[in-house]
Amino acid sequence: MQFYIMTLFPDMVMDGLNTSIIGRAMDKGLLDIEAVNIRDYAFNKHNSVDDYPYGGGAGMLMQAEPVYQCYEAVKKKIETKALLSDPGTRKSPRVIYLSPQGKTFNQTMAEEFAQEEDLVFLCGHYEGIDERVLNEVVTDYVSIGDYVLTGGELPAMIMIDAISRLVPGVLHNDVSAEFESFQDNLLEYPQYSRPEIWHDKQVPAILLSGHHANIEKWRREQSVIRTAKNRPDLIEKAKLTKEEQKLAEEIMLEATGQ
Amino acid sequence: MQFYIMTLFPDMVMDGLNTSIIGRAMDKGLLDIEAVNIRDYAFNKHNSVDDYPYGGGAGMLMQAEPVYQCYEAVKKKIETKALLSDPGTRKSPRVIYLSPQGKTFNQTMAEEFAQEEDLVFLCGHYEGIDERVLNEVVTDYVSIGDYVLTGGELPAMIMIDAISRLVPGVLHNDVSAEFESFQDNLLEYPQYSRPEIWHDKQVPAILLSGHHANIEKWRREQSVIRTAKNRPDLIEKAKLTKEEQKLAEEIMLEATGQ
Repeated sequence: MQFYIMTLFPDMVMDGLNTSIIGRAMDKGLLDIEAVNIRDYAFNKHNSVDDYPYGGGAGMLMQAEPVYQCYEAVKKKIETKALLSDPGTRKSPRVIYLSPQGKTFNQTMAEEFAQEEDLVFLCGHYEGIDERVLNEVVTDYVSIGDYVLTGGELPAMIMIDAISRLVPGVLHNDVSAEFESFQDNLLEYPQYSRPEIWHDKQVPAILLSGHHANIEKWRREQSVIRTAKNRPDLIEKAKLTKEEQKLAEEIMLEATGQ
Repeated sequence: MQFYIMTLFPDMVMDGLNTSIIGRAMDKGLLDIEAVNIRDYAFNKHNSVDDYPYGGGAGMLMQAEPVYQCYEAVKKKIETKALLSDPGTRKSPRVIYLSPQGKTFNQTMAEEFAQEEDLVFLCGHYEGIDERVLNEVVTDYVSIGDYVLTGGELPAMIMIDAISRLVPGVLHNDVSAEFESFQDNLLEYPQYSRPEIWHDKQVPAILLSGHHANIEKWRREQSVIRTAKNRPDLIEKAKLTKEEQKLAEEIMLEATGQ
């Protein structure tokens, strides 16, 4: 899978994604991440890409033309690649603009984006980007949450991380991606590693029993309890047995009583 | 304001926060960000900090002791600093663990965290961290959204970015932090910069009028329209005039009709 990130801070993006799991997946050729500097498409002698907003207001705005030229260059790369591998196709890439205006990112969207061959991210900085170029190039407005950030770089990295780990082979085992938070809309159970006793705290005996069916049962129960306690909003969407449903309701009732 | 990040990937965190607005604020001494390597507190000759989870399962878990020792070192630094500036105080820092288990991060939480002098972030990696050390050191469980990531580093960077920009002096002008998305629970209005005509698209005439009151009125209206269209859930919490309320309801009704 190939990611293109249009940004004013290509080094920041690449440094943040070069590490650990994503870095290894790039080395293995499973992922290709390219940060494209919008400033390379500045059209004036000062190499500037921002200007004052019409109508006044604080801060500077990224201008339409450099963003547009940068997008055209990325699009051409993707088209050329598509033509080489499958002549006759003409593919316009999905372009994601990181913005509080957008649809809130979640795991289902990550799974959907992970099906794409190419994804383009557009990172705003300063006070944003001229509305006209957004209308022309952006296909998806996405927000990673209800908070304000200094730019679109970190949220693009977040999305790339969440999407990349769903690409087959990126995690050590496919099991890993499956048995995790939000599987069945439940939070993860508590985990313990060596030593058996740490600060006078014993690992739950069941985990040392070697009885796999009981361990699975205990973990599942812990997941239900935690989700009911911390994220009752997820319980509604979770697939639960009747018994689990009862357990969850008891816990939520208790929490309301407090 | 001082941030400490306990992580296995200190370079990734520092490289990602050294840039642009946050980088400048560090240079000016408004922010101090220190990534502390948990691996420096490994207690065995292999320098390892992870082990298999009890009860089986995919992947490795971060062990309790290195995390605990790392926390103790950070705590000592903060206590020493507090004693120097105000003898007699003994301060335990807030420790934020990035986890899907946590409360979902939002702008109100960012504002609350921005009041602290010190904040400690604990970043999990692999399959998570031994539950016992979390119980002992973590004060706040926070999630940045409903998606799964490869580690806690990127979400810690997101939180630090959102919190830092609220620290006085970090943005060029305090106005900038105020007049932005989520102000009054409304999304931002569209913005335009030079040239006046781009790709046959004209900047809205009102923005060129120089009539400030009318410009403000238009922008506010655009914010209401956008929020009603894209994030009707925010409209309930927004402070609107009767006229604005009517406008928002019309738009939401139209959207439902489609």
